Order: sequence, then C-alpha cells, then structure tokens
Amino acid sequence: MKFDAMVEVKLRPGIADPQGATIERALPALGFEEVSGVRVGKAFRFQIDAQDVGAAAEVIDEMCKRLLANPVIEDSLVIELNPIDG
Amino acid sequence: MKFDAMVEVKLRPGIADPQGATIERALPALGFEEVSGVRVGKAFRFQIDAQDVGAAAEVIDEMCKRLLANPVIEDSLVIELNPIDG
Repeated sequence: MKFDAMVEVKLRPGIADPQGATIERALPALGFEEVSGVRVGKAFRFQIDAQDVGAAAEVIDEMCKRLLANPVIEDSLVIELNPIDG
Repeated sequence: MKFDAMVEVKLRPGIADPQGATIERALPALGFEEVSGVRVGKAFRFQIDAQDVGAAAEVIDEMCKRLLANPVIEDSLVIELNPIDG
C-alpha cells in the first residue's frame, strides 16, 4: 500500500529561532501588525510503501529520528498520511 | 479573535529540489528503501488576530505572497487555522 505523507519538523519550544524572529521584525513595516509568534520549521513531503497506516507511521518516526530531524532541538510531527488510490 | 496558523510553503511541481534529492539518495543506505519522491518545503507557525477565519485567511494569503513565499517557484498552503480559546 502506498501513502502520501507530510511531516513537519519544528524547533522545540524554548529553542531560539532567529529566522522566525527576523520575519516577525519585518511584518509591521509590511502592514501585518496582527501576526506574532512566528516560528519557522521544515515540511517534508514524500511517498511511502507500507503494509498499513501503522507500519508507515513507524517507518516515518524512525526516519525522522535518524535523518530528518535533530531530536536534541527539534520535534517532528506527521501532518498528513493518506493512502494513494483509495 | 486570535488564531493559531500553520502555513506550508513548497516548491512548485517541476522545480528542482536538490535538498529533497540529497535526502532521497541517503535513504537506501539507512534502510528506508520504501520512501520516494522526497520534497522539502518550509513550515511557518504563528498567531494571527482577525475578525473571523475568512479575514485571517486573507491576511495569510497576502503575507505568503509578499513575504513568506516566492510565487515564481513556490506554492503556499494553509494547513492549520484554529481559533485559540474556543
């Protein structure tokens, strides 16, 4: 079974996010005073072959720990995991 | 009304993604042969003050076009937009 997956990797709470802070400083000058607390993470999309959703989620979890995220400073989160063709 | 938002900014289909290609080349050596088609994008999280969901979505759309994404090569997508405290 094939799945479409989207995984978010974001900085853990309390870890400084200079990229987010820079965006936030730019917002008022552009007229977006209503936006605050900007944090920037990564969004990975890929296809994965697995027996079922549970097996796919397990592989993704392992892949996040070993390749996509730095568990010391980052959290990973499966945002989408949908079967392709049914 | 305050909302928690998550926006994904991803490369348009057909735009080369060297970062995704590099991750994909590393996968077999780590035992993840079942994963393919890796694409890497950005995930922005922030809070936004707006009258309602529609107004918030409009501001986010404008912010993506003017600051967060490069519309020539990137698509943006609101993944989450949830009211805080009800």
